[in-house]
Amino acid sequence: MIRVAVDAMGGDRGPEEIVAGAVDAASDNVEPVIVGPRGLDTQGLELIEAPDVIAMDEKPTEAVRTKPNSSLVVACQAVGEGKADAVVSAGNTGAMLAACLLELRRIPGVRRPAIAVTIPARRGPSVLLDSGANADARPEDLVQFAHMGAVFAEEILGVAEPEIRLLSIGEEPEKGNQLTLEAHRLLAASDLNFAGNAEGRDLLTGAADVVVTDGFTGNVVLKVTEGTIKGLLEGLREEISSTAVGKLGGLLIRPAARRLRKRLDPDTYGGAYLLGLRGLAVIAHGSSSRRAITNAVSLAARGVEKDVVGRLTQNLGESVLASRPSTTPTPNVR
Amino acid sequence: MIRVAVDAMGGDRGPEEIVAGAVDAASDNVEPVIVGPRGLDTQGLELIEAPDVIAMDEKPTEAVRTKPNSSLVVACQAVGEGKADAVVSAGNTGAMLAACLLELRRIPGVRRPAIAVTIPARRGPSVLLDSGANADARPEDLVQFAHMGAVFAEEILGVAEPEIRLLSIGEEPEKGNQLTLEAHRLLAASDLNFAGNAEGRDLLTGAADVVVTDGFTGNVVLKVTEGTIKGLLEGLREEISSTAVGKLGGLLIRPAARRLRKRLDPDTYGGAYLLGLRGLAVIAHGSSSRRAITNAVSLAARGVEKDVVGRLTQNLGESVLASRPSTTPTPNVR
Repeated sequence: MIRVAVDAMGGDRGPEEIVAGAVDAASDNVEPVIVGPRGLDTQGLELIEAPDVIAMDEKPTEAVRTKPNSSLVVACQAVGEGKADAVVSAGNTGAMLAACLLELRRIPGVRRPAIAVTIPARRGPSVLLDSGANADARPEDLVQFAHMGAVFAEEILGVAEPEIRLLSIGEEPEKGNQLTLEAHRLLAASDLNFAGNAEGRDLLTGAADVVVTDGFTGNVVLKVTEGTIKGLLEGLREEISSTAVGKLGGLLIRPAARRLRKRLDPDTYGGAYLLGLRGLAVIAHGSSSRRAITNAVSLAARGVEKDVVGRLTQNLGESVLASRPSTTPTPNVR
Repeated sequence: MIRVAVDAMGGDRGPEEIVAGAVDAASDNVEPVIVGPRGLDTQGLELIEAPDVIAMDEKPTEAVRTKPNSSLVVACQAVGEGKADAVVSAGNTGAMLAACLLELRRIPGVRRPAIAVTIPARRGPSVLLDSGANADARPEDLVQFAHMGAVFAEEILGVAEPEIRLLSIGEEPEKGNQLTLEAHRLLAASDLNFAGNAEGRDLLTGAADVVVTDGFTGNVVLKVTEGTIKGLLEGLREEISSTAVGKLGGLLIRPAARRLRKRLDPDTYGGAYLLGLRGLAVIAHGSSSRRAITNAVSLAARGVEKDVVGRLTQNLGESVLASRPSTTPTPNVR
């Protein structure tokens, strides 16, 4: 039985939505465990009590330090103490990162954990990492991200020998900034299936199975994609409703637009993995629906089943870190 | 009379398209001058002869060094030597940057020129810079970009006291990477109308009159936006044509889709300014249509008319550089 600790108090839609999603995820081999205040209606699921709540806008490190009894921290703790196999939270991303670093700790040799987001590309799902765990990264970090992304693509997306690309500003190896130029050299010299640079315009088509970048660029890319989709669909709706003929056409294409929106829906994947830790953590969108939470819990359970953490520990130990001393900097969480 | 040197040999559509665009831009006070090989049909416009051509895929600095008689270099030279007031090229962007640095040189005190791209945001045009002139930037460079963007927004877009924002991964001042955290501090302390950070999701809505970022991030952002628009419209077309009803609806919304595409069309602005040089240079898309070239020439002429270079020289001299020694590093062109 795989036990997934679910932070009931994270997310913008309130604990009822999250509990409902967790209930839907329960199965013969997945047991969601709710973490929240005493008296919360868990719909029959086990409750781990946690009286405090970390809000979306609290400063991450401070919140985690001053609220050790918050649902978010206690949910991470449950994994660290072996009371659960994985944790899911739709709460404050920075706080989740800080709590995971504290309660789960990094895999030996990993300098920075990374957030792996699955992009619903046309060619099939594609993993973008780091999507925002670290605003600054070194070239060696990007190589670790590539290894982590490869394990994710193999185990979770079922891709054999995943193709890796580095996000840059041109396909040629000599295009990029200091970070990507050096990362390109390191990736090319690694034993990964590295296919060179990818450009931003190919992300939604499916640039590669794994696209590696620093957390600043990755986060900007996700938000630009999100904003462009929203802006474009709004613009189209506006233009369509400006004429009567357009309005009729709009009615007729509604099912098509709905199918497209479903294809691009981030809820399909439910959440992002926080990779590089000794335990499995999934960060769900703040606005997660019941369905998104169900998918996030299933995603977490699949990671446990496939032993993603074990694979990462082995893989990073073998191929990246043998030749380098491990360093332990302060986590870059604000 | 404002003379604009037009590189006839840059661009993917051949010199006929470019000459046609230049002819359309000719007016009572704008005189386009064609730069290209002897014998080229200039439709009656003056020709400055340049026998060589720099291809799109040539290495910029090498191409500029080995082909001083290329249309691209000669067109820049024409401005440097006072034979023209501005230059337009749809050719190799890196080569254009290298040639401009060589032939036009930087405004005293400017460390890095920047590419200013006008984004057709919903709220109105918004300037994003640097969109790719320099892959790496320092916090001080971002402050210079902000000053340059402000002059551009005032003179070219006609915005009084333009609002400036810094592209980052959260609106709070403490969100960002080392570069943006420091740039935020410098911008907040400057005399600019700085309104804080902008997030990628607001770019297409209209985050601010001027959005400042490093050239790596700016270039990635433009390409992601472009790729998302293309991917989304293709996906919609695909879904629409999968059913008969959808196809009919598709026909009816075609005019609306065309209006939207026109609103987002980069050809509307014709090109991007290369700011920070002692002369005026506009870089047009490689795939520029006749209409795009016409708009690029008009854009260049407007810059001359509004004395953008003079305003930049004065502005950067007064407000940014008084307290700092000017530095002259090697241009970051590959």
